[in-house]
Parts: sequence; C-alpha cells; structure tokens
Amino acid sequence: MFSHIDSEGKARMVDVSKKDDVLRVARAEGYILLRKETIRAIIENRVAKGNVLNTAVVAGTLAAKKTSELIPLCHPLQITSVSIDFEIYEDRIKAVCEVKYVGKTGVEMEALVGVTNALLTVWDMVKSIEKDENGQYPFTRITDVRVVEKIKEK
Amino acid sequence: MFSHIDSEGKARMVDVSKKDDVLRVARAEGYILLRKETIRAIIENRVAKGNVLNTAVVAGTLAAKKTSELIPLCHPLQITSVSIDFEIYEDRIKAVCEVKYVGKTGVEMEALVGVTNALLTVWDMVKSIEKDENGQYPFTRITDVRVVEKIKEK
Amino acid sequence: MFSHIDSEGKARMVDVSKKDDVLRVARAEGYILLRKETIRAIIENRVAKGNVLNTAVVAGTLAAKKTSELIPLCHPLQITSVSIDFEIYEDRIKAVCEVKYVGKTGVEMEALVGVTNALLTVWDMVKSIEKDENGQYPFTRITDVRVVEKIKEK
Amino acid sequence: MFSHIDSEGKARMVDVSKKDDVLRVARAEGYILLRKETIRAIIENRVAKGNVLNTAVVAGTLAAKKTSELIPLCHPLQITSVSIDFEIYEDRIKAVCEVKYVGKTGVEMEALVGVTNALLTVWDMVKSIEKDENGQYPFTRITDVRVVEKIKEK
Amino acid sequence: MFSHIDSEGKARMVDVSKKDDVLRVARAEGYILLRKETIRAIIENRVAKGNVLNTAVVAGTLAAKKTSELIPLCHPLQITSVSIDFEIYEDRIKAVCEVKYVGKTGVEMEALVGVTNALLTVWDMVKSIEKDENGQYPFTRITDVRVVEKIKEK
Amino acid sequence: MFSHIDSEGKARMVDVSKKDDVLRVARAEGYILLRKETIRAIIENRVAKGNVLNTAVVAGTLAAKKTSELIPLCHPLQITSVSIDFEIYEDRIKAVCEVKYVGKTGVEMEALVGVTNALLTVWDMVKSIEKDENGQYPFTRITDVRVVEKIKEK
Repeated sequence: MFSHIDSEGKARMVDVSKKDDVLRVARAEGYILLRKETIRAIIENRVAKGNVLNTAVVAGTLAAKKTSELIPLCHPLQITSVSIDFEIYEDRIKAVCEVKYVGKTGVEMEALVGVTNALLTVWDMVKSIEKDENGQYPFTRITDVRVVEKIKEK
Repeated sequence: MFSHIDSEGKARMVDVSKKDDVLRVARAEGYILLRKETIRAIIENRVAKGNVLNTAVVAGTLAAKKTSELIPLCHPLQITSVSIDFEIYEDRIKAVCEVKYVGKTGVEMEALVGVTNALLTVWDMVKSIEKDENGQYPFTRITDVRVVEKIKEK
Repeated sequence: MFSHIDSEGKARMVDVSKKDDVLRVARAEGYILLRKETIRAIIENRVAKGNVLNTAVVAGTLAAKKTSELIPLCHPLQITSVSIDFEIYEDRIKAVCEVKYVGKTGVEMEALVGVTNALLTVWDMVKSIEKDENGQYPFTRITDVRVVEKIKEK
Repeated sequence: MFSHIDSEGKARMVDVSKKDDVLRVARAEGYILLRKETIRAIIENRVAKGNVLNTAVVAGTLAAKKTSELIPLCHPLQITSVSIDFEIYEDRIKAVCEVKYVGKTGVEMEALVGVTNALLTVWDMVKSIEKDENGQYPFTRITDVRVVEKIKEK
Repeated sequence: MFSHIDSEGKARMVDVSKKDDVLRVARAEGYILLRKETIRAIIENRVAKGNVLNTAVVAGTLAAKKTSELIPLCHPLQITSVSIDFEIYEDRIKAVCEVKYVGKTGVEMEALVGVTNALLTVWDMVKSIEKDENGQYPFTRITDVRVVEKIKEK
Repeated sequence: MFSHIDSEGKARMVDVSKKDDVLRVARAEGYILLRKETIRAIIENRVAKGNVLNTAVVAGTLAAKKTSELIPLCHPLQITSVSIDFEIYEDRIKAVCEVKYVGKTGVEMEALVGVTNALLTVWDMVKSIEKDENGQYPFTRITDVRVVEKIKEK
C-alpha cells in the first residue's frame, strides 16, 4: 500500500447496532421574520400561492422523513410520529416540530430538518410579498433554530 | 402570541409509537382499460418500448417502497414483502399488489401505491399504441382501484 | 459472445434528443368514491388528520415532479407549471391536474401521476372514517383516471 | 357539483412557461452558533465523526439540487453551479451558498436550502461535543439565515 | 473572522452556466462474472426472483436519471435518452449503457451509474444461486467498468 | 381471464416477514485504476473540484442508505452503521465499505452500493485529470468489486 489518508477522508456514521430500542422524542423550534403585511395575508389566507401554513406542515413532515437522505451521517429511521405547529406573532412565525421514534438513536436532527423545511416553505409561499422593488429580501430571516428538548425513555 | 391558526394549518401523522409490532398484510387491485390491439401486443411482447409487465412490476415495487415519500402522512416502514401480479383480459389488465410488514401500522397505502404505479407504467409503455391520430387517449383508463383485504395478525 | 437476449431484456426510453422545444400541456382527471359522511367531514374541515384537500394538492404537485423517478421510461423534465383542482360531489371527489412544460416531450404521465397521488392522499387522510368495523374499505375506490387533453403548441 | 373548496385547498406553482431563459444567481448565508471548543475541534480536524466542513459542503450541495423535492411549489431546475463557503469565527461558523441557473425562475430557495442543510450537517457532525451532560443543546443555534443577493441578467 | 478552511472544506461543482447547449453522448460498459449455472438460469429465465435482465435494465435506467443525487458534484440534467444492452458470455454478462443529452455538460457519469446499477441489480437477482454453502460469494465480481466513448457534437 | 403472463412479468422481493432480527454485517471492496499523477494530486489534496476522498465517503454512505431505491428487489432497511475506508496504491485506490444491520435480511447489496458509489465519486472528482486530449478516459477503470465477507450473528 502506498498511502492511507485519514483525517481528511473520514466521515463515519456512529455504529448504533448495540443500542437499545427505546422511545425517543425530540422537539425543535425556529422563527421566520416577515413583514407585518405578510403575516396578515397569511392569517387571512390571502396569499396568492395558497394555504401557507398547511403547505409548510406537509413540507416539513415530508422533510423530517427524508433526514437520512439530507444529513449524510444520520441513520435511516422508521419514525413513529411527526407533528408541526405554528405560533403567529405580529412580525414573525414560530414553528415547532416534534418527532418520536422507537429505536436505537435520537431524533433531534429529524426535528431540526422538519422545522427548517417548514420555515423555508413559508418563505417560498410568500416570496412575492416579501421582495422589495429590486427583487431583494431586506426583512426575511430564518432565525433562532434550536433543539428545545430531547427525551429518552428509561 | 398574535394568533394561532388551527383548522387550516393542520396535517398530522398518527402517533403509532405505542402500537404493537405485529404482521400486517394488505392487498389492493385495480384495472387499466386498453385497446384490444394493445393487449395483444403486450401478450406477444411486441411493444416497442419493451417488456411491459416486468417493467410495471419493477416500477410498482419501487413505488410501494417510496410510499412515505409520496403520501405525506404515511410512516416510513421497513416492509418485508411486495408482490405484484397481473391478470390479462381482452380489453383490460388487472394488477394486484400484496404488501407485508411486521410493525406498528397497516400497509394498505403501500399496496395502493404499488398498484397505481404499476398501472401507470403499463400506460406509459403503450402510449404510442393507445393514442389516436390527434395524440389523445379516447380509451385508456385506470379504474376500480380498491383495497381487497387488510389483515392484522392477532 | 454466447447469447443475446432481446425481447425480454428490453425496456428503452424513447430518444427525444432531436425533438423541438415547444410548449406542451396535459390535463388528467380522476375520481375517488367516498362515504357521504366523509365528504361532509372534508367540506367542513373536520377530518382528524388535517386539511384533506390542501394536503392532497401538495402531495400531487410533489409527485408530478417525481414522475421520472416513478415511471421508469419517463424523461426527467423541468416542468414549468403544475396545478391541481377539486370538484366535490355528494359521494365522490374529482381531481384535475394540469401540467405545462417547454421542451421535447409530452407531460401526460406527469398529469396522471399528479392526479393519482392527490387521490391516494385523500384516501390516506380519511382512512379512519372510510374503514368499516372490520378495518376494511367496502366503499372507497379510485376510478376513471384518464387524460382529458394533451396539447402541443405549433 | 356539490361544492368547490378554494381558499383551503389551494397551493399552486407559479406558471413560468412564458418566462425568459436568462442567467440567474442567488446568494444566501446563515450562521451556526457553537461552543468555542467545538470550533477549535473543527479547525484542528479532531471531530470524531470526521471532516466537518467538507461533509457539510457535500450535504449542502446535494440538498440544493433537491430543492424542488423539499419545497412543494419550487420548479425542478437544471442548476448550473452550486458553491458553498465557510467563514469561521470564535463562536460561530458562517456558511454562504451561491447558486446559478440559466432558465425561467430565480434560485434563492436553492441557495437557502443549500445553506440550511450545510449548517444542519455541521450540527450533526458535532452533536457529541455540543450536548451537555443531560443530552441537551444549550448553546447550539442556526440563525440569521437570509438571502444576500439575487441577480437576474438583463 | 477567525479562520478560513480551504483545502479540506472544498468540494465544488464546475460552473457550466456559460457552456453551449449541444448534443452530448456517452457510452460506458462493464462486466459481472457469474457461475456458469447462473448464466444458464438467466438465459432460460429460470431465476426465482424473476426476469433478471429486464429488471436490470429498468434499475439501470432509473439510476442513470438519479446520477445528480448520487454523485455530489454532478449537475441535474434533463437527459434525452438512456439505453442499456447486454451481451451474455459463458461466465460473464457485459452491460453497455448509452446516455444522450442536449445541454451544457457531458454525461459519462450518467452512463457509468447506469452500467453499475444494472450490474448490481443482476447480482441481487441471482444472489441465491451465486452464494456458496457458507453464504459467501467466491466467484461474483463486477469488473472492468469503463467509459467506451464520449462524444460532443460540434 | 384471457391470459396470465408469468415468466416474463415476474420480479418478486423475497418475503422476509418470518426471518429473525439478528445482527448482520457485510463488507465489500473494489478498485479504481487511475493515472499516477491523479493519485498524487489526491494525496496532496490538489484536485480542483475539492477533497476527493471525503466527498467519496459521504457519497458512498448516502448511496448505501439508498440501496432499496436503486436495486428494485432490496428491502428498505434501518441500517445501523456504514463505514468506508480507502487504501491508496501507486496506480489505484481501493475502497472498502462495511455495513451493519439488526434485522431480517443481509446487507451485502448495501455494502456493494456503498463501494461502487464511492468509486464513481472518485472518478467524477478527477475527471479533468484523467481525460486525454480527446476527452476520453484511456486508463480509468472501476474493477474487482466483490463481497469480502458476509456475517450473520447466531
């Protein structure tokens, strides 16, 4: 053998073969900052592209199920529950995603993927209202995405 | 908090975390109506795009495995068996898809996705024979897609 | 060479390299037969799993974009528009999917995939109302799925 | 027809069939806040799961190409370039994703999907260092994700 | 800014925005070595799992279309043709995959992905015949996978 | 019924519903032959497209998780570990992929898919160095892909 490249060529899934099958729950949340007009259009269901929040829930739920395709070292998991909820404030929407799973590894990445994709879908639905006259987004932000809680049943 | 939108923003997977891991079987069937010439071309393996029924079986099997990507609130499942069979009549083909799974939820959606995608693939393979001189499909139909039986081992 | 297997080993995409890039439109429709109570629950947005029709539109739209992954000999296409609409009758829902594309091949398979997946998603959302006391579906059917019109700009 | 449900059942891709094929560029950025020890472990390539930043670039690039699967109303696009860069600060990493495309619609959602998935992958790679003794993430945040610039060639 | 990591964090798609839209063709081939009994079972269509070669063609065709999902720095492409052919020898099968595309970049990776996945599918179909009494594969090999020719129309 | 087509229309997953849930491990390996200059450029991390080996590990790991999407009759599996390693020789690179799983079926196809996609990604990363002045690949080969060992815990 000529050479063995280690530190740069490594990216390895954690081996969870010997872990216990227990109930695991994770909750993640995050915000999207929007113009006040946009928030009102969402509440009154006047957005041209359609029902913003249901579309975002569906997108976030599908994305949470795709986590192991998106995050290279995540294990494929038969998750048993995904739920996504919103709280609407005057200038922002908060999304919360809870994921449950009975198996060998935690599901915080699944919850984070669910939240970020729900928020990205909100953004996509309201692009035409959020853009300024030059086609830029001076206000729109996705922010404060975090894991609220991670639980592992004893 | 400014507002809480419920009825329109809801789409929620059923939480199956506490369900039992038992054997579940589902069988679905459906039909595609075709011209009699098309049926004969399929039986005699004379269709230009290739082997219609094997291609349809492969497509339906792969689709059944993709059910949780296609149907937003379906759980990702390690299904343990998919089989697809055809019965050929003078003016229609019947497809039957059986799916098995050992786990926490039924697999009728997987069987339905398998059947519909097998039938859609039949359609795609015979498009050039089914189309009329204006490029329309006056005869082709996918019809009577239903769940034949759903079994849950006690 | 020992042998050359043709008739059974063939499944071949049509070569569209030399086709013109023109606007192509296809419209497909289909029905799901449901209990009258289910129809009322959908209209009144009382279905436990959530907003049935918006979830079905989102699922059908995403599925139409996945057509070349589902139907083996379909070409991957940058489709330029997908829209899905419903008409609700006393005992059935009709879905119509229109797909547009500027390119080298027609989009009727995309429209058919959009319709069938929208209808399958309706089924999934109302499973608990449609099932009888033995967990079977005596009434639910997806039926009369067809291509309404296929247009190719001159 | 019995009823026609509009406001709740609508979610519609913008029809871009008639738009011009021009060069479009979008740049998005975002941050992940991390412990200082984690930042040092990344710079010194001492993270147990492997090369954090290259893994994040690969994940973000693949995710940008999956945008139309993740965001329901995004069009499938033959994007012509994706690049992802990082700037590393004492307590945070900034990711910037630039996407180019020659076609009928802008690519800011692709750039945002690239950034968020690169940052989520950083998180996944350093989970064991970021977690506290109770398995929680008191410091980790993905924040200030925004579109820096969107350009459309005249 | 604290640091800028370059050599390890780089993985960048080639920017093809300014390349010409011309016809591109690539042909790749490869072999799978099999037991003579397995070859005979394939020719006589006696393999328990089903039609080996058609299933392999369908799998290879679908995989070629997925190239940009599998190979991180490949561009998503609307390929216009995929065809896969086999030549059967006494102790091996040769697969050839030809891919065509009208656009800004070559398609040799697509042809290679088509060939390798067709050969992997052959392997999967004949596993039970190829395995020895200890469940090992002493003979089976995929080998000599190469690009036969790459053409770019002037 | 008019006819029943069997031998040509069959492609059937093995039913593993009754198999035991035990630990299963598989290791596969394979080689890519490259120019000596290319090998040196990889070792010295001078390849223009970026970090070749880490990108290949990430691609191979993601591909191993996609096995049931690529190989039609493979079961979807919650694999518990994937690792990919390289040995570098003067004119070739050897990739080894090990996959673990606790469940009802072996994972040799997953290991083979991991190896081949890691090697294909190496190829893609070094295309510009491997091509000759006519854009052809006179030296590059993927070869000797085999299953090294398959273990099933008693």
